[in-house]
Amino acid sequence: MDAIEKKFLKLGAEYAPGQEVRQHTDEMEWKYEKIPGTPVDFSHGDVDAFEPIPGSLDAFVDGVHTGGKQAYTEYRGSKDIRERLAQKVSAFTGAAIDAERNFIITPGTQGALFLAMGSTVARGDKVAIVESDYFANRKLVEFFDGEVVPIQMDYLGTDTSAGLDLTQLEEAFQAGVKLFLFSNPNNPTGVIYSQGEIHRIAALAQEYGASVIVDELYARLIFEEGAYTHLCAQNIVDPENVITIMGPSKTESLSGYRLGVAFGSAKIIDRMEKLQAIVSLRAGGYSQAVLKTWFSEPNGWMNKRIAQHQAIRDDIVAKLQSAEGFTVRATEAGSYLFPSIPELDISINEFVKVLRLQAAVTVTPGTEFGPQFQHSFRINFSQNHQAAVEAIDRVIQVVEAHRK
Amino acid sequence: MDAIEKKFLKLGAEYAPGQEVRQHTDEMEWKYEKIPGTPVDFSHGDVDAFEPIPGSLDAFVDGVHTGGKQAYTEYRGSKDIRERLAQKVSAFTGAAIDAERNFIITPGTQGALFLAMGSTVARGDKVAIVESDYFANRKLVEFFDGEVVPIQMDYLGTDTSAGLDLTQLEEAFQAGVKLFLFSNPNNPTGVIYSQGEIHRIAALAQEYGASVIVDELYARLIFEEGAYTHLCAQNIVDPENVITIMGPSKTESLSGYRLGVAFGSAKIIDRMEKLQAIVSLRAGGYSQAVLKTWFSEPNGWMNKRIAQHQAIRDDIVAKLQSAEGFTVRATEAGSYLFPSIPELDISINEFVKVLRLQAAVTVTPGTEFGPQFQHSFRINFSQNHQAAVEAIDRVIQVVEAHRK
Repeated sequence: MDAIEKKFLKLGAEYAPGQEVRQHTDEMEWKYEKIPGTPVDFSHGDVDAFEPIPGSLDAFVDGVHTGGKQAYTEYRGSKDIRERLAQKVSAFTGAAIDAERNFIITPGTQGALFLAMGSTVARGDKVAIVESDYFANRKLVEFFDGEVVPIQMDYLGTDTSAGLDLTQLEEAFQAGVKLFLFSNPNNPTGVIYSQGEIHRIAALAQEYGASVIVDELYARLIFEEGAYTHLCAQNIVDPENVITIMGPSKTESLSGYRLGVAFGSAKIIDRMEKLQAIVSLRAGGYSQAVLKTWFSEPNGWMNKRIAQHQAIRDDIVAKLQSAEGFTVRATEAGSYLFPSIPELDISINEFVKVLRLQAAVTVTPGTEFGPQFQHSFRINFSQNHQAAVEAIDRVIQVVEAHRK
Repeated sequence: MDAIEKKFLKLGAEYAPGQEVRQHTDEMEWKYEKIPGTPVDFSHGDVDAFEPIPGSLDAFVDGVHTGGKQAYTEYRGSKDIRERLAQKVSAFTGAAIDAERNFIITPGTQGALFLAMGSTVARGDKVAIVESDYFANRKLVEFFDGEVVPIQMDYLGTDTSAGLDLTQLEEAFQAGVKLFLFSNPNNPTGVIYSQGEIHRIAALAQEYGASVIVDELYARLIFEEGAYTHLCAQNIVDPENVITIMGPSKTESLSGYRLGVAFGSAKIIDRMEKLQAIVSLRAGGYSQAVLKTWFSEPNGWMNKRIAQHQAIRDDIVAKLQSAEGFTVRATEAGSYLFPSIPELDISINEFVKVLRLQAAVTVTPGTEFGPQFQHSFRINFSQNHQAAVEAIDRVIQVVEAHRK
């Protein structure tokens, strides 16, 4: 087997959210009696239940009518839109952001992550990755021939922090880790890192001269006005060693437009633009115009969205907590839940397939977020409220049928 | 300097088309008297002069109204649209294409190129690249730590073929090259490879077990009904070793939607999808719906577009051929011209800056397409006809002022 074949064997996407239709399940079809109910795809949010920001399509159409200037922006994105957004994101995070030097528009938050990692990870570099964390993080390190150094997070053992093992993080830096990548709120658990954790992460990065990439994709959907600390605004670590990533794909339901942003280190942003030039030139030109609606939503729109999600969360958490053998920590921000389930007579990947075939419910297996999560799954509860709650009943029913 | 810093030093984008606004030219501003005239940006086509396929925005809006199904497609793109397009592209090229196994929708043709190269080039691999050819080709090889093996093309020395040095190509395969990447028609010269050249390329690839990536971005805009040979349809080389790339960004003016496709080898397409999953998930979901207009343009639309471009080409070629010291071969397909100019008292990069500051004309320096093209520049003549022809007068005027 050659080097490239080996690399791609590790890059599996069969169980990644959205790819379930490519799973081979024909031979399983006949085995399972269907449990009736409205199909729910918990692998991602439902933009039909929670629609895009009002006016987003109009902004796109305006972009098309602007013509060539909007179609062919700089690779780092339209100057006008960068200026507008840098100001808004700066106000939101509390960090100083220069639109010209410190800001890039990307094709989705995934695009921002890829560019940031491609601009910081060289062959053999050690990169600290939290377990559990977003499944692409480990894959990115592997694609760029880096070495994953896992950092444990005991999110079920506390409710005053994310439960990150800060001792292990310091040991990782001591062992030569030069980059720490993490999502805050954490994906898949929905927990927020405490101020103490963020300060310690920043202090360690500064002490060891390491870079930090913070994925803040869900930082606007915060329940019960929980405290949220933006690492980039703490003035603890050299700002030239920090990249923060955000985007309107989730809370704002703009995923279909493929938009994200990254801001921070001018040096890394420059590299990201050079890489963007050979990856896909730029975020879709007309789509960039849609960013005019971001952080400019109608009054009350975001508060309503938060309240609706909190109500769904509360109903689902109550159901899961009353089911035997389930453990779950309530989401603090974003729309993910990461329950652990009792031991089953089938693997977590089989469970996910059975659940989809039998109960028309799609969830993402825990093993996508760390190899040890063989008894967990992730759901994105940004769904039709009633359908989502009913689907959780079916999840519990399938777990019952396969309990060891 | 660390490894990643070195890599990005080679990845310069300052002279890349569309990035001219980031060039530092403040100190030059005062030196040059302006030559009046309508500004023309020859670095890319003008989608205001040649508008997108009729109905493309409507198709996008329909996509938005389709909702979640269109926003969250498989990473390789919407199944419906793949099926529709695989059939059309199969009819166009004459190659058998299975929508499920052999076809992927990408964020632009650049996205297809990046994914194809990332799926075939491992560290240290030798990759044959034509000089001159699209500037990103060399950068992609370098980014993936491959080694560029240049193959010369004497496009000015013949008019019955592209002038590729087939002996040099065979020697490259003998020396261990495992991948040949080339654009047909050639970018920047606009020449078409002859049937003999394509057959020989295919036979050599087959003999040496090499893969071939063919960038056919401009294969629909063919002048004087010139003969065009699709390598993928010749049945000479193992189809599992061939990837063909196309897209509607140029002739069809859909660049603002960021759409491209790749088809061929099921093994490589599978890898490309895995890579897509970590690069940007998918081509913009709503944008994918715009592909319904591609290869389904109104009757006569493409013929008119070709005739209009041919008329611009003829006027510009006549002007350039009558200017002293210019040499140019007329475009056979696409909308690029790559004239060579007499020796100047300034470098080609300085010439490009002066031309922009003094005459409001943007062209791309020849050195972007191969280090030896220090007396050439590329123009994309998909522009307002009159403005383009007048801009060429200004180009000739600036060359005259700096002739050695």
